[in-house]
Amino acid sequence: MHTLEACRDLDRRDPLAALADRFARAASGRIHFDANSMGAMPVSAPERIRRLMTECWRDKSRRAWTSEGWVERPRQLGADISHMIGAGPGDVVVCDNTTVNLFKVIAHAWKLRAGGDVILTESHNFPTDLHVAQGFVRLLNDLGVDARVRTAQTRERLLDRLDRDVAILYLSHTDYRSSERWDLAEMNERARAAGALTVWDLSHSAGALDVDLAGAGADFAVGCGYKYLCGGPGGPAFLYVDPAHQGGAWPAISGWMGHAKWDRFLTEYEPDPGTARHLTGTPPVIANEVFAAAAEIWREVRREDVAGKHESLTETLIALLDEECGALGVGINSPRRYPHRGGHVSFSHPGAGPVSEALVDHGLLCSFRAPSSIRLAMSPLYHRHEDVWQAVRIIKDVLAREAWRDPKYQVVSI
Amino acid sequence: MHTLEACRDLDRRDPLAALADRFARAASGRIHFDANSMGAMPVSAPERIRRLMTECWRDKSRRAWTSEGWVERPRQLGADISHMIGAGPGDVVVCDNTTVNLFKVIAHAWKLRAGGDVILTESHNFPTDLHVAQGFVRLLNDLGVDARVRTAQTRERLLDRLDRDVAILYLSHTDYRSSERWDLAEMNERARAAGALTVWDLSHSAGALDVDLAGAGADFAVGCGYKYLCGGPGGPAFLYVDPAHQGGAWPAISGWMGHAKWDRFLTEYEPDPGTARHLTGTPPVIANEVFAAAAEIWREVRREDVAGKHESLTETLIALLDEECGALGVGINSPRRYPHRGGHVSFSHPGAGPVSEALVDHGLLCSFRAPSSIRLAMSPLYHRHEDVWQAVRIIKDVLAREAWRDPKYQVVSI
Repeated sequence: MHTLEACRDLDRRDPLAALADRFARAASGRIHFDANSMGAMPVSAPERIRRLMTECWRDKSRRAWTSEGWVERPRQLGADISHMIGAGPGDVVVCDNTTVNLFKVIAHAWKLRAGGDVILTESHNFPTDLHVAQGFVRLLNDLGVDARVRTAQTRERLLDRLDRDVAILYLSHTDYRSSERWDLAEMNERARAAGALTVWDLSHSAGALDVDLAGAGADFAVGCGYKYLCGGPGGPAFLYVDPAHQGGAWPAISGWMGHAKWDRFLTEYEPDPGTARHLTGTPPVIANEVFAAAAEIWREVRREDVAGKHESLTETLIALLDEECGALGVGINSPRRYPHRGGHVSFSHPGAGPVSEALVDHGLLCSFRAPSSIRLAMSPLYHRHEDVWQAVRIIKDVLAREAWRDPKYQVVSI
Repeated sequence: MHTLEACRDLDRRDPLAALADRFARAASGRIHFDANSMGAMPVSAPERIRRLMTECWRDKSRRAWTSEGWVERPRQLGADISHMIGAGPGDVVVCDNTTVNLFKVIAHAWKLRAGGDVILTESHNFPTDLHVAQGFVRLLNDLGVDARVRTAQTRERLLDRLDRDVAILYLSHTDYRSSERWDLAEMNERARAAGALTVWDLSHSAGALDVDLAGAGADFAVGCGYKYLCGGPGGPAFLYVDPAHQGGAWPAISGWMGHAKWDRFLTEYEPDPGTARHLTGTPPVIANEVFAAAAEIWREVRREDVAGKHESLTETLIALLDEECGALGVGINSPRRYPHRGGHVSFSHPGAGPVSEALVDHGLLCSFRAPSSIRLAMSPLYHRHEDVWQAVRIIKDVLAREAWRDPKYQVVSI
């Protein structure tokens, strides 16, 4: 039995417990289990931004470019979060958005591929991941170069289709709907055996799971900065390149910030020797300052503590959903074994759309995915086991009283 | 004679005079003539950001994606500034940075080119403009496709080299050092005659000059959002595509935000019918909110008023520099005829490096470019003719007293 007292006991033994106070809580008191969509705001962020806007933008203007280290920030932020994905501090940069970064690493991988003309991925990968691959292939085809996207509907079929024609194995580590998780090391090994390079999207993993890119032998990875990483709405994404590949090719988007000597204003492009060659133009100063508020916290934590707490929170959630809501129509969509599960937990209910609206109204922010699933995503940095207990109480109450049948909940927002 | 009284008289007749109060002034009281590097902060920006961070990020979390219209912002901001560059409201988007946008429009132009394999530009174009072209050509060459960057050191040579091999004529409208301005309509016409498409970088023009992309027959354009446009340090850039070309090719970077039905989460990419196909990933919400503070002001002004005031400010500056500082070693680097001059005014002095440092210390923020020039860039939105008069007084004082020879000014920041 997962009692309230048992949850509180887990919280008392949580090595990350003190971090919760460094994140702002909603004025409504609502529990926000949407870390897969937007991580919470570090308490220090508003004051950082106020200072940046007045003391830097208003008062120093262009002189802040150098005095504030704005140009070094993309490298610094990459180093700050690097341990969370098992990367060396110089192997990650924070820049642009996930889509643009996916394009960069696909182009980089394509240039280094051993052979083949196929980008292999899942047919239900996240839309932008699919679009980027489709657009890259179309670019090549428009240039008269052979290239294809090959998709597979199931994991079994994907393994079947990982043959010598595959240049790039292109996967989301965690599925954005079901939360199924790939085994990083196994898939890198299978790709290598087939002569393919791997490109991973870690958007629904980084900042929650024990991701070890270098240890697992990943070639390229990118991920969202504003979900579990708490980098602020629409904040910059990250990009990783295996040290063995960093110097191997010019970046497709060659810009002055990725120049080996960016501060010299040289006319001939010379790529930075490392991952930083993938920096493009002027960094988004204000967005980076927001991200820095979170990075300051990431620097202080160990990946194993984060992943350990994430496992404990999600295992508690699933156990409580089973115990309290199983008889009320709730089924667990996500894998039950933790190593097979990603950042969030998805559960099913026939009335999922209106249920999710009713849950928000009753104090629990979650997210709905058509046709019948609800996702709950907790952050190991700022959620407690007691929050999980409270959340399940809300779910049970809404389902038991059938509160979600109220007509006002029938219009569902995405 | 340009007396203080004459300057004040011009200010009294300035139709944009009231806008100055909508921009924050440096606490130091220093005059910031660096609008070519970082436009001033709209007074409304800090409160907009405070609200966004607390009421939206903290309190609404993921629900703000839909309730706040964050996803429509890149289109809205593009429409808000479109009249300032002579574009239709649906023909411009605000997104990513200038470098990434340059890559997108070069790739788009390449797909539509009539023939040729040359990208023609000036050898002294801004570094990132050159780097993007070099990187794009390298990408094509790595794919086995013929492509070359061809450069010219002078404008005359560039015209000579604009032949049938040229696929894309790729120019900065205003030179970032000298402030020389190309004639948009003439160069579009010359390119068309040679069978080439044009790609313009308007970074040192937009928000200051009377740029009329559609009227001048430009094919593609991009530009910086944080210089004269005041979109905030490192804020997003803009991107324009001639309506005739918008539907002609898939974007190289195909992302979910550029999908014709982005909110449907479809797996097959289908480009937006217009310029918005060049949107990539999740928009930078906080940066866009800052930009919106400036866009609100741009919506209220007429391009001819902005350009008229810009001409008046810069003509006054040159006349005063001649009158007051000509005998003190100051020469004008920029074209003297307004239609040939871009956003800023560059002047030369043998001690330009230390002079620029001394000017900052004496109340005038300008920028130095090695070896011997200083750039002054005024914004028609918030600078007055009286500021110009004061600035020249400071320059005259620093030069006449040789204050810049103080050893503390010998270390020059870029």
